Amino acid sequence: MQNNTLLSVSVAREKILQGISPLTSEKCSIHSAHNRIVAEDLIALISHPAQAVSAMDGYAARLSDIVTVPTLLPKVGTSRAGCMYEKPLLAGELVRIFTGAVIPDGCDTIVLQEDTEIVQGKIQINEQPKLGQYIRKPGLDFLAGQKIITKLSQLTSRSCALIALAGFSEVNVIKKPQIGILTSGDELVAPGQFPKPGQLINSNNLLLSSLIRSSGGEPFDLGILPDKPGALIEKLTNSTDLDLIVTTGGASVGDHDFIAADIKNDPNTALYFWKIAMRPGKPLLFGKYKNTPLLGLPGNPVSAGVCSVLFLTPIIKKFLGLNPNLSYSNALITQDLTKNDKREEYLRATLFENNEGIRYVTPASIQDSSMLAILNKADCLIQRPAFAPKIKRGSVVSILNFPNLF
Amino acid sequence: MQNNTLLSVSVAREKILQGISPLTSEKCSIHSAHNRIVAEDLIALISHPAQAVSAMDGYAARLSDIVTVPTLLPKVGTSRAGCMYEKPLLAGELVRIFTGAVIPDGCDTIVLQEDTEIVQGKIQINEQPKLGQYIRKPGLDFLAGQKIITKLSQLTSRSCALIALAGFSEVNVIKKPQIGILTSGDELVAPGQFPKPGQLINSNNLLLSSLIRSSGGEPFDLGILPDKPGALIEKLTNSTDLDLIVTTGGASVGDHDFIAADIKNDPNTALYFWKIAMRPGKPLLFGKYKNTPLLGLPGNPVSAGVCSVLFLTPIIKKFLGLNPNLSYSNALITQDLTKNDKREEYLRATLFENNEGIRYVTPASIQDSSMLAILNKADCLIQRPAFAPKIKRGSVVSILNFPNLF
Repeated sequence: MQNNTLLSVSVAREKILQGISPLTSEKCSIHSAHNRIVAEDLIALISHPAQAVSAMDGYAARLSDIVTVPTLLPKVGTSRAGCMYEKPLLAGELVRIFTGAVIPDGCDTIVLQEDTEIVQGKIQINEQPKLGQYIRKPGLDFLAGQKIITKLSQLTSRSCALIALAGFSEVNVIKKPQIGILTSGDELVAPGQFPKPGQLINSNNLLLSSLIRSSGGEPFDLGILPDKPGALIEKLTNSTDLDLIVTTGGASVGDHDFIAADIKNDPNTALYFWKIAMRPGKPLLFGKYKNTPLLGLPGNPVSAGVCSVLFLTPIIKKFLGLNPNLSYSNALITQDLTKNDKREEYLRATLFENNEGIRYVTPASIQDSSMLAILNKADCLIQRPAFAPKIKRGSVVSILNFPNLF
Repeated sequence: MQNNTLLSVSVAREKILQGISPLTSEKCSIHSAHNRIVAEDLIALISHPAQAVSAMDGYAARLSDIVTVPTLLPKVGTSRAGCMYEKPLLAGELVRIFTGAVIPDGCDTIVLQEDTEIVQGKIQINEQPKLGQYIRKPGLDFLAGQKIITKLSQLTSRSCALIALAGFSEVNVIKKPQIGILTSGDELVAPGQFPKPGQLINSNNLLLSSLIRSSGGEPFDLGILPDKPGALIEKLTNSTDLDLIVTTGGASVGDHDFIAADIKNDPNTALYFWKIAMRPGKPLLFGKYKNTPLLGLPGNPVSAGVCSVLFLTPIIKKFLGLNPNLSYSNALITQDLTKNDKREEYLRATLFENNEGIRYVTPASIQDSSMLAILNKADCLIQRPAFAPKIKRGSVVSILNFPNLF
């Protein structure tokens, strides 16, 4: 499967995703389950409410005692949340009841507090109640045995609360993909160091680690890879517990780019391809080191960023059992675009939605792949297919929104 | 300012926000700055690129040496990323250069690698280059002294990479609001405990803590508050370092709800109001314990959830210096709605967008405020103003989307 031809973005992504298998699950306390993906349907362990409870503050009553209004009845006790009235409600009795409190046996209606007044030490009911009013039946919210969360849902605040209420203290969630990051290049220095002439601060590690974390993975910094043959294999020897290795830089055709060569030359690796027909990001690589998939992103900050949106986040989604497809949408272009060449292009662009909900997209005036400040200001990418013809201002174009917090 | 009249949602929110001041800033390593809010404009400390660099693999050349093509010139050295060619480029010389490498002095154009071939040990240039082509000027991305991030921006993956590249190793960010959570009610048991008849698993703490964390705050579990006078003040005595206290339950008009009473009776507290005209969530309270604002949410899981979207997330935004306004939008209702009473209503609803981008919203068939499973399935809330007239299917209604991961 080794070849040097340019692959299209969609074929590249398909081939990459074929090499990724969804991860297994692990137990997780509900206190740290927010944002995780549940690995199985969750079936309520207990009903909510477990017993019939009152939906309002008032009086538990028997409808047959209230033939006409006003009616005067004695209060024989109280049922409140956490302290129920243990006896049955007998004919001719009222029990003071509060919201959420258990309905006594025999009660079939709740008289609202505001529909009563105290008269001669008894409770006078001034409004005729209806049968069953303000009584929440057992299991009104959900019954024990009922499915409350579907497999592969992401646990939100609401669903964490729901599974707590349903009796769970821990849940099976999909493991977080463990992703090693190797940034490549002799010119790189760590953030905070002042670069000498010709050196560059390593920004890709920060971009990737934060993106991996906010996409549901766990990043591991494997350090900076020097530009020399064999360096990659040396770094990876002790990195066998990872689900994915991501490299940046060193995957170009330059004489000093050794990643592809390293992978080709090692008997434990496989190289699937290393050039794809896209801009920014032509030098992209997918392979395996032993059983660990390896994604080689370009070193240019913008190319690394755009390629991580196009290839890395779908990989993480597939690991998590989620749909890895990118969600393109449409917008109207605010200026003419020239025809495109053989490389599918992703233009950094800003989006504007007018009052009628119509979206207009404007490409940045410079699209140089070293310009991170422009990527930072962009709202989305305009996708231009290979060989797209020139188009006029006002035409519909396909756009790709960024992942949350990218 | 103490009163018993029903306040409108918007007036309540306004009064609450008047009691909240934006927090001060703290230093934060760029490695943990993702998602944080920057407290000041960030001005690049160094330019990117710091020197003129090549945008392509090829040869650094002097245009005056290439009068016609083909031209044969000798390669006198190499400039690569991390290892520049230190001497000036003299007339009649070429220097092999790689993407990102520093341009030697005297070079004014880059000849693409694919436009050359090796002939008799020299480099034959086959295509006429243009002046300055493929040379990235110093500061092309940004110049030292240029503003790269605006005050109160949220730091995304892209902006973390950008500030690293601009020379930062730490930044001033707005402090995370420290928010204590007190869940109130004798009926509550912790998740994982099996509730006895009349008991209820505490789900509000999980809902609030995860929402606070994903909104940029830091939650602290202050435990479960028993239903007895004075319990609130007892719990708060040692909680003076918090920016906000959130309670759930115990703020109703029921005989056993002591929070409002506790706040009223203590000389260190202030009670601003405790009933607002909304459904779900009438019993809502805002006050102060010493100098710490206190937000009392209803105890019903759905009411607590809806009120946290309407009141708690705007508070967190104001703490973080962000715009606290809720962003309502429009959708078409798929069924008739009856007229509304004096309480502004927030209906749990599902949203559907058709191919033309038109959004349709359907309220859940039961709107009981104890039904967390329905809140969990909802995509948004339909806002119905107080005294809204009945409307027909197809009418425009106002909807409120949930915060991310709510």
